[in-house]
Order: sequence, then C-alpha cells, then structure tokens
Amino acid sequence: MKMNQLVGMRFKETPAECQIASHSLMTRGGYIKNVGSGIFSLFTPAKRIMQKIEAIIREEMNRVGGQEVMLPVAMPASLWKESGRFDSVDNALLRFKDRNGADMVLGMTHEEAVVHLVRDAAPSYMNYPFMVYQIQTKFRDEPRARGGLIRVREFTMKDAYSFHTSQEDLERYYDRCYKAYERIFTRAGLPEVVVVQSDSGMMGGKVSHEFMLLADVGEDSLVLCEGCGFSSNMEVSSVTLDPMSAAAGTEEKLELIHTPDTKTIEDLCKLLSIKPEQTCKAVIFRTVADDGLIVVFIRGDLEANETKLRNFLKEEIRPEQRDAAPNGGCGRETGVAYGSCGPVGFTAKARLLFDRSLQGAEGLVTGANKEDYHYKGFSPGRDCPDAEYHDFAKAYEGMLCPACQKHPVSVKRGIEVGNIFQLGTKYTETMGMQYLDAEGATQTPIMGCYGIGVGRMAASACEAHHDDYGPIWPMPIAPWQVHICALRSDEGDVRQAADSLYEALQNKGVEVLYDDRAVSAGVMFSDADLLGVPLRVIISPKTVGRGVIEVKKRDKSFSQDVADGEAAGFVTTMVKEMLDEYTPDKV
Amino acid sequence: MKMNQLVGMRFKETPAECQIASHSLMTRGGYIKNVGSGIFSLFTPAKRIMQKIEAIIREEMNRVGGQEVMLPVAMPASLWKESGRFDSVDNALLRFKDRNGADMVLGMTHEEAVVHLVRDAAPSYMNYPFMVYQIQTKFRDEPRARGGLIRVREFTMKDAYSFHTSQEDLERYYDRCYKAYERIFTRAGLPEVVVVQSDSGMMGGKVSHEFMLLADVGEDSLVLCEGCGFSSNMEVSSVTLDPMSAAAGTEEKLELIHTPDTKTIEDLCKLLSIKPEQTCKAVIFRTVADDGLIVVFIRGDLEANETKLRNFLKEEIRPEQRDAAPNGGCGRETGVAYGSCGPVGFTAKARLLFDRSLQGAEGLVTGANKEDYHYKGFSPGRDCPDAEYHDFAKAYEGMLCPACQKHPVSVKRGIEVGNIFQLGTKYTETMGMQYLDAEGATQTPIMGCYGIGVGRMAASACEAHHDDYGPIWPMPIAPWQVHICALRSDEGDVRQAADSLYEALQNKGVEVLYDDRAVSAGVMFSDADLLGVPLRVIISPKTVGRGVIEVKKRDKSFSQDVADGEAAGFVTTMVKEMLDEYTPDKV
Repeated sequence: MKMNQLVGMRFKETPAECQIASHSLMTRGGYIKNVGSGIFSLFTPAKRIMQKIEAIIREEMNRVGGQEVMLPVAMPASLWKESGRFDSVDNALLRFKDRNGADMVLGMTHEEAVVHLVRDAAPSYMNYPFMVYQIQTKFRDEPRARGGLIRVREFTMKDAYSFHTSQEDLERYYDRCYKAYERIFTRAGLPEVVVVQSDSGMMGGKVSHEFMLLADVGEDSLVLCEGCGFSSNMEVSSVTLDPMSAAAGTEEKLELIHTPDTKTIEDLCKLLSIKPEQTCKAVIFRTVADDGLIVVFIRGDLEANETKLRNFLKEEIRPEQRDAAPNGGCGRETGVAYGSCGPVGFTAKARLLFDRSLQGAEGLVTGANKEDYHYKGFSPGRDCPDAEYHDFAKAYEGMLCPACQKHPVSVKRGIEVGNIFQLGTKYTETMGMQYLDAEGATQTPIMGCYGIGVGRMAASACEAHHDDYGPIWPMPIAPWQVHICALRSDEGDVRQAADSLYEALQNKGVEVLYDDRAVSAGVMFSDADLLGVPLRVIISPKTVGRGVIEVKKRDKSFSQDVADGEAAGFVTTMVKEMLDEYTPDKV
Repeated sequence: MKMNQLVGMRFKETPAECQIASHSLMTRGGYIKNVGSGIFSLFTPAKRIMQKIEAIIREEMNRVGGQEVMLPVAMPASLWKESGRFDSVDNALLRFKDRNGADMVLGMTHEEAVVHLVRDAAPSYMNYPFMVYQIQTKFRDEPRARGGLIRVREFTMKDAYSFHTSQEDLERYYDRCYKAYERIFTRAGLPEVVVVQSDSGMMGGKVSHEFMLLADVGEDSLVLCEGCGFSSNMEVSSVTLDPMSAAAGTEEKLELIHTPDTKTIEDLCKLLSIKPEQTCKAVIFRTVADDGLIVVFIRGDLEANETKLRNFLKEEIRPEQRDAAPNGGCGRETGVAYGSCGPVGFTAKARLLFDRSLQGAEGLVTGANKEDYHYKGFSPGRDCPDAEYHDFAKAYEGMLCPACQKHPVSVKRGIEVGNIFQLGTKYTETMGMQYLDAEGATQTPIMGCYGIGVGRMAASACEAHHDDYGPIWPMPIAPWQVHICALRSDEGDVRQAADSLYEALQNKGVEVLYDDRAVSAGVMFSDADLLGVPLRVIISPKTVGRGVIEVKKRDKSFSQDVADGEAAGFVTTMVKEMLDEYTPDKV
C-alpha cells in the first residue's frame, strides 16, 4: 500500500496520558486512538498486526484439534446466574438491562456461554476430548484502565475451552496447549515469554499458568529462580523462611514497654535497636461483603500476600484504610490500636490469623493494643497457644528458592499475555453438562480453559521490541514486511526504480508499504521508524546513481547496498529469513 | 476434519420456534444455538461459512482501496451525543451505564465512531478520498428478533465508510462500491441478489440502495418492473396513479347521506355500489414524541405509506390504535369520528395531510365526521381549497411502473443483505471533521457508508439454496468443499480407500469433512444433507468392489462413478469448477 493513502497521523510529541512505551509509540505512530476510558479504535497498522497474531493463534489452536466457534458478546444474565458468577463476580462484569428489562451482561470470559453451547453436543464419552475456541471481543469494566492496549476495558481475546472425561486426559491436553502457547509466542516474535504458576482467581480450578512477558511496566510480580527454573506469580509463590531469622529471639518473659512515637516497624526497630525479623506485626484487612476486620500477624520483615489471604478466606477482601481510624491511631470505632496492634490482649471484634513465620519464633516485640506501648518477649507458641499457622507471606527478592532451596530468587515485573487453567467441573456441574461413560453411567466432564489477549500481545511485542524512535516489529507480526522509502521520487529514475521494485515485491507476495511522498528524508525516516516495518529499502538519486538500492533492518543490525537487478530477489529472501527466525524449532 | 470430532448435534425434528427454512435447517444441522432473544452462538460449520464470506468481503473492500480498522463495540455515549443520535434514535440503541455511572451504548452502527477515529487523520484535501471498514460485532436491541440469523440482536457486520471532497467524488466512489457489492454477492453464491432504491431512515443522507435477496420470508416489500428494471423498496417507491380512476367521478353538489353500519371503505362501496377509487378515506397516525394526531386523506383504493409520511414529517409516528376510541367509533377524547372521518367539517385537533391521489379528483364519497353519515359529491379542489398534495401512497402489485410508465410492477418480498448510503455531511458536520482544500479554505468532508450483514448473508444463502433435507451451500462459502461418506469403514478396503482419498485431497488443499463413523447409511446421508457440503464422495464395499468411488453433487444435478486412481484429481478439478461458477465475470 502507498503511504500517502494510509489513514492515520504520526507525530513526535508523547501525549501526556502515555506512561509506557507501547502506549506512546502506538499512539504517535497512528496505530490506536483512545475513544474512552480503556476503549480504543484501531487504525490499519494495528489491525494488520492483530490479524497476523490471530492467524498464528488460529493455526496453533487448529493444530491441537481446536474447532473455531463464536459466542455472544452480550448475553442473558441467566447464564451467569446458572454458574453462580452473576453474584460472585465484582462489577468488572458489566451488567445492564435490555429494552424489555431483562438482565444482560457483557462477556468478560465465556465459560458459561461455551458450556451452554456444547452441553447437549457431547452426550457420549466417545465425543471426548474436544476443544472449541473463539477470537472475539470482550469487555471487562476495569476500574483502572491504563497503558494503551496493555490494560483496557474492551479487548480482543482468543479463548479456548477443552472438555475431558478424566483428570489425566485434561492434564495431557493441558500440556499440549502449554506447548502450543509456547509455539504461539515464539512464532509471534515473543520468544522471551516465560511461564509461571498462577492464581486461579475467579475462574475456579486448582492448576493454572500464566504466560508473562518480562517488562518493567508489567503489573504482575514474578518470582523466578535462575538456578532451577522455578517461576511463579508472586500472588501464589511459596515462601522460604530463613531458619536463622526465625530463631533470632530466645525465650523470655512477656514485658510491657513504653514505645512512644512508634507507628511503624521501622520506628520500633530504631528505638529498640532490633531487626524487623525480631518483631511481630499486624496487617489489617476488611472483608468486602460485610466489612469485617481481618488481622494477619506476621513476622515484621515480611509482607502479607493479599491473594493467598483471599484464597484462604474464600472471599473478597481489601486492605484496611488507616485513615478510617480517628487520629490515625487507636481506632475508637473498631477498638483496634492501629500503631500498636498485637496478638496479646487483642479485644476488638476481628478474625485473627497467624502466618507460619511466627511458628516456633520466640522473644519477639509486638504491639500491646495500647497506644505507645509494645510487648517484648512475645513467644507465639506460649502466648497464643490456640494459634493455627498458614502461609500468608509474600515472596521477596533474594529469598531462597522455595523449589530447589539452593539459589536466591529474583523478583521481576511481567505483562500477562496468556493464561491456561485446569478448571475442573465448576461450570459443567453448576450448568448440568453430562455425558454417559462406557458403562452407561452419567458423568460430569472436566474442563480446561486457555486465553490469550490479542491486543495486549501486540502492545507487549512493542514493549519488548522498540527503540526511542518507534516499534521494531518482529517480521511475523509486522504490519508490512518491507517499507520502501523513495527519496525525491519526483526524479524520473528514482520513481522508476521504486515503482518497479514495489511491483516486483508485490508480485512475489511480499507485503510492501511504499512511501513516495514529497517529504524530507527526516519526515520520511521518522515516519518509517514509527511504523516499525522490520526491513527498509531506501531509493534515492544517490543510490540510483550507483545502480543500487540500500537495504536496512529497522533494528540497525544490517545495512547493505544491493545491485538494482538483484533487489527484488534479495529482499524477498531476507523477508523469508527474518520470518524463519521465529519458527519454533529453531528457537 | 473428521465427522466424529465435529462438535454439534444434528436432528430431524423442526423446533417449534423455527418458522423459516434457514432457522430450522441451521438449528437442526448443528450450525447455531440460540442463547437468548436474538442472540446466537455459532458452531464450527457456521463459523467457517462466516469466515469465507468475510474473506470475500475483505478482498472486495481492499480492491476498492478500503483499509481495515477496528472500532469499539461498547462506546461512550458522548460520541452519540455529538451527532445528536443519542436522543434521536429509539431504544434499538442499547444504552447503559458503566461502573462509574458513565453513559455508554452498544454500537448498532459506527458513523460516530469512525468520524471520531479519522477526524484528525485527514487534514488536507490531498488525503481524500479514502475508505475504512471493519468486520465487527454489533448489537441492535430489536423488539422482535426472529428467523434465526435473519433478524437478530447481536450480529457480525461489515461496515465501511468513505470520505470525499465533493459530491461528484462520492458518487463516483459510491458506484464503485455498488459494483463491489455485486461482486461480493456473486462470489458468495448469491448472484440472485437485486438492488433497490431505499429509505435512508435514521442514517441521514438522500441516496441509498439496498441489496435484497428475493425470498418469501423477507421482511421488506420490493416494487420491481421486469420491463425497465426499475426496483425500489416499497417504503420509498413512487406511485403511478391511474388517470382513468382519478377522473372516475364528475363534479356534483356536496350532499350529506345516511350510511349506517359502514365502518370500512368496503362497507361503503357495497352500500352505495361504487368503487373504492370513488371514495376518499382517512388514515390516522400519532406522533411518537407528543401523541399528536395526523390524518392522511387518500383515495379509497390506496394505502398510506408510513415511511413516506415519516420522512415528510421528519419525526417518528405510529398508526392510531382504533381501540383507543370509545365504542371503537366516534372518539370522544379526540373528537375524531373514526368510521366516518373526512376533510369537510373536520374539527378535531389534528394535522391534516392530503395524498396527491386526491388532486383533481371530483365527485368522491367521504366521511362526514358524524357517525353513520358520509358526504357524496366531494371535490377536494373545490371543498378544500387550501389543501396541499404530497405523495403518501403505497405502491401496489400491478401498478404501472413509475419509471417507464409502460409495464405493471410486481411486488415481492426480500431479505436485506446489504445497503449503501450517500450520507452527506450529517456526521462530519455535527462532529466537527474538517479539511483544508487546495485554496486553504476549511471544508467539511462528505461521507458514504456501506454495510453487509455477514450472518444474515449466511442464512440468506441457506434460504436461497436448500431442499427439504438441508442447505445446499454454494461452493465458495461451503463449510467444507468435499464430504467423504465411508460406509462400513470397518472393512479394510473401504477404510484404506477412504483414508487415502482423505489424505490425497487434503494434500491438494481441498477442505474435506470425512465421515468414517460406524453409523447406518441413512444416518450418514441425512447428516451429510444437513451439513450441505456441495460435493460428496461415497465409498462403500460396493464401490470398492468395482474399483471406483461415487461422486455426487449435493443438489442432485450430478452423479458419477470415478475410477479409484483418478479420484483425487477428478474431485479436485470439480471443486475448482464449482468455485469458478461464481467468479463475477462468468455470471
């Protein structure tokens, strides 16, 4: 296509609302336009990238036997009432009424819809296993949409659902999908994607994995061990407790001490010249449903992991707002002494939970539930004989790997580009999907589900592959494969050379963006940088004079003059080679 | 793909809710499943048909320079407030609020969204003309969803929007799109589609055309002249008045006559032994906005055309409910004598309109605005000297063609599968889209828009091409191209012949559905009929014994035994020929 026909403007200035590279570059390059909070329209370059990603996904889903279907965007709430999620999911699920007053929802995920579709379609064990998938628009009413296509409200997603007659069969298929996902990310130019264990959250089920692109702008924290390959979303990562620290204290008598102006563990350690692991702190939450207080006691050097707590409690919680307490200190309404909260003499109405970092610890300093006072000599085993200990701690950088127990882990940020879940029977059971087994007995099929955010993948590719001037699209998902820059195309020789290369490449099936505009080299190259086509051909009076064209890679790793007569063949071969870089077997 | 893996059940009984063939056959064949009123999920066969239609549309849109983009399904209401349609469109536009209470709509058409996308993207006349399009999900909150995929609430649509610097340029481009549409319908196996002039309705603009598949189950009435090719949606068709009838009466004195028990024109004609064209009747409507009475006087043999009336009034109207009047007769509340309403002595508060069928007529019988009384000798020119005459009449079967004035028209039903509109500047003006012309002056671009309902097209193809046993898909959009029925595949020879043909055809790029299930010939063939694959190969112990395969067309027009060794080549050639039948040049 010709550049002067391409709809969309390119510009230099980073818009104020763009905090991350992909948002800025894709806005500045004429890929996306913001329509409202978390809602974007796509110009042609973005649409072409999406279509290439979708084609790769489709091929890999078909390769594992997937059958493409289509489920509704807007659906009757009755489906979500059947599964119970109409009530259990928060208002990220957009609920509304149609003209007849019927409850409707916008699909944010489609387990209900797919079970509705197939529940009568596989009545015999002989119909199993099977997998259906769709690539369709979804809507999730995010409170905080941000980062361009990274976290939006309306998005294009590939979601696949598999159905099985046994857990073993699910696991076998889950493994095939895991590998299909690795192929997808590799083929789409994101071989850097790592897989981590993850939280199943609102989906139900026990085993799940997320596919993460490591990026500082990612919203997820990942715990990674380079030694053994352990990888986990921090939300669910086990914690290795340093046995030295746990035994830091020794048994001593419980004693009330005056600790003025110590609202934090840091204050307290400074005043008493002790280390955080010699303290026991309280982290306070509230249940969303009935505003009940939850107090987690945990060793002072550790943080509480909200996801683990939520999974333990099986209900939604939120961190307590300290400002809610009068004077920011001893809360009159709750009876909680916020700066001096501890397990001994705690009288407020709350559910008390103990992290296993406290198990066996002795001689700790902890709050005395009285402003400006703490206890020292606190030994949980002795002073809280009824306490049960669970894992509520957050993993941290440098912690010994919970898998190999040998290497320290690193904590990195990641963008979730895909996820896979072993769902179990949550949806098939609530929605009454059944089949007859070989003995004629009624059984409930076991489900897996497999998602990929297509737009987020496009933006992630930009995060992973860009420079200050624009994206550097991997060849398999680039909006075009070759960008011809014809400088001074008003000169007959340039025009002729460029036109004939444009035609020759198109005849060879190469996707070409052809810029023959009467603009300066500066404008032409900065536009080309923003469009990020991986291979560039420059034709100018200078190159024509030498009987060559100039071939460059967008990533600056390659530049070569090629004789006119060999141009089309040379460029076509390079395109092929750059595509082949991403065939899974070679990575 | 193998039939035993295909998700979806096929069955014999027509479900009670299925009134038309495509709804019934696509439900019975495992193509679609109803999720809620006007909302369907698609199984793989339907999805494959849709994808083939989409591919054809995409090619033809690209051929006329279209650039594919993507606009949101859910969008902020602010866009629709800018254009004024948030208030003017009825509740087919689904309005809702997001979690922050912001007004949102589900896109039922995307003029607003596309102008938002491109309004800053084409600042100079040099950027014009251009066209962008998308294939995306839409939602229209239809009060009466019916007929399977024919009239749904959620649907997949291709919508294209072109932008121009002059009306001439729009018309030139509009003509190219018109031809592109003809190519699309031909290529998709619907060469029967006819084009009619149409009403621009809520879209704005003056010139528009609809692409209609003639079908008795269609919701639109079309006026067609076989003589000159005139074709129009009845909503906007001009009416040719028979000059003989208009002069049926002669001038005579206005005289009150007693006409007991004459509530209808038929009653009146019987009582007085006159013809309907010798009467003047009243057709009563109400404005939706303020419930105002609208009375249309029209010659007794004609019907009033609600669309023409709506376009004349530029506001929404609805037919008056006769039951609203006490006694079903002289309405006390409105003052209208419903069975005896006429222009002379009409005193109720109402807007009176006159159809041009009354212009110059004389000696008519009309209501006297008094129960059981009429006037005879009514001459509009004399008795209603201030009347203005407009075209409010509905065209009718046998009417002289309004274009050629030579041949009688026929009235047929049609399904609207596409439409094209010359929109003018309605959206660019209200939404402030501008460009600089060659002289540097600010101008407003002129728009065209072009829609095709993809799902409706699939269902229409089924309406046009089916028999009692199932759809007969045209080759270019068939879910698969060849259906192999292997009878008794448990016999080694059959299995080997079928397996090797399956593989050979796939290697040649033919799309094959392969049925090797252990079912009876009856079940296998009735399933094949429902899946409607246009070319069928039967392999059985009998054919294997004779060293042949049996090749049949689904439409029963062809059946031939082909020697084993030539099978793959023969079938591949037939597929190609059956595809070629739909290349536009040959039609």
